[in-house]
Amino acid sequence: MPDIVTAAMIVIGDEILSGRTKDRNIGHLADMMTAIGVDLKEVRVVADDEDDIIAAVNALRHRYDYVFTTGGIGPTHDDITADSVAKAFGVACDYDEKAMALLAQSYAARNIEFNDARKRMARMPVGADHIDNPVSVAPGFRIGNVHVMAGVPSIFQAMLDNVVPTLKTGTRLRSATVSCPHGEGIIGGPLAKIQEAHPDTIIGSYPKYLDGTFSTDLVVRARTQAALDAARQAVEAMVAALPAR
Amino acid sequence: MPDIVTAAMIVIGDEILSGRTKDRNIGHLADMMTAIGVDLKEVRVVADDEDDIIAAVNALRHRYDYVFTTGGIGPTHDDITADSVAKAFGVACDYDEKAMALLAQSYAARNIEFNDARKRMARMPVGADHIDNPVSVAPGFRIGNVHVMAGVPSIFQAMLDNVVPTLKTGTRLRSATVSCPHGEGIIGGPLAKIQEAHPDTIIGSYPKYLDGTFSTDLVVRARTQAALDAARQAVEAMVAALPAR
Repeated sequence: MPDIVTAAMIVIGDEILSGRTKDRNIGHLADMMTAIGVDLKEVRVVADDEDDIIAAVNALRHRYDYVFTTGGIGPTHDDITADSVAKAFGVACDYDEKAMALLAQSYAARNIEFNDARKRMARMPVGADHIDNPVSVAPGFRIGNVHVMAGVPSIFQAMLDNVVPTLKTGTRLRSATVSCPHGEGIIGGPLAKIQEAHPDTIIGSYPKYLDGTFSTDLVVRARTQAALDAARQAVEAMVAALPAR
Repeated sequence: MPDIVTAAMIVIGDEILSGRTKDRNIGHLADMMTAIGVDLKEVRVVADDEDDIIAAVNALRHRYDYVFTTGGIGPTHDDITADSVAKAFGVACDYDEKAMALLAQSYAARNIEFNDARKRMARMPVGADHIDNPVSVAPGFRIGNVHVMAGVPSIFQAMLDNVVPTLKTGTRLRSATVSCPHGEGIIGGPLAKIQEAHPDTIIGSYPKYLDGTFSTDLVVRARTQAALDAARQAVEAMVAALPAR
């Protein structure tokens, strides 16, 4: 039996919902999870709102093996992720001693005042572990199965690189893509039959529309190479039997 | 009192969660909603899974004025959005007479067989209204406050253009951006005070990290020009008083 490990993501930030910032973290997390054999099952984008963040954290942390959040851990008043996650877990949010020392040292080395705003970045739920930030020092954190990371893509990516080796991973979902020069209408019937005959695979059909013409990518996914190959060959045979375009 | 109109989005598709396809529809919907004065409050990305789609539709349609979905309305076996939305509303999903006629005519004109797979695209919850698809004929639909649209970005955008004029809209959230050549640490304290003094505005602080240096975009949002101007001027004065970089 394949090992299944599941995850969800919470993207926190008014700027994504207003359109001002176009999210780039969902795609990166999705790629990383697929690469290591963790199934990303759900993503939620929520506002900088304590109730919304708490609701999302508690809805998802019980349902999936891992939860990853991005955004809202900086030094300004709209950075409320640490407090919200602490409330979701029912623990206090306080200045973390190790984070305070790290930040104090980093600012001292640059002759920058370690002011109250900057100290906010050392706040985390009591009992949380650090997620190292090699880019700009201020750490993310993990509490239970929830990993809290920065929203700035380069910092999120660096933090995630530190998280990935700590995760249990499942049997990787292998995938193969078969290009079909036709739209979905001609293949819908036979493709459904192939999916039925290969229940241990997931067959997706992704239409593309370019210059007034549809084509389709047929993506077979499976947790064993044998299952993948069998379904892929069936899909290839189906496409080969279609009239040429 | 400003009129507030709220919305949520459901992005349906395994291909987004696997990372294979990078979503481009969230940003487009967010931009459009901001432009017309609808507050996008939440986005969920869910798998091609009936239970997950039903749960998301029912969680969001009661909470927000509008729900918009993308993906899963094509002719293949993994296109299960119409059936799932019908179940969420507790109504039957059936071949829509008007959609059948539209599609039959379109395929006949192109000498293409109107096969069972293609007929799937005419299925919708009983009682739903069409959302016209000027790109490739197969319509989206609206049932209650839920608008079901295609996932292919060009088709989604064309459908959304047809939906927007039918929406009630609220008082638009105006916004102004003040660029700050410093990171957030130096402004966290004074910015929080400005936010407190201007409770009818939403002030967001968005750090950028480029070539080893942080800068920040400070975004003021408000539903009246007077409130916007007052907070923007306060933010500008704060930035002007900072030491030059």
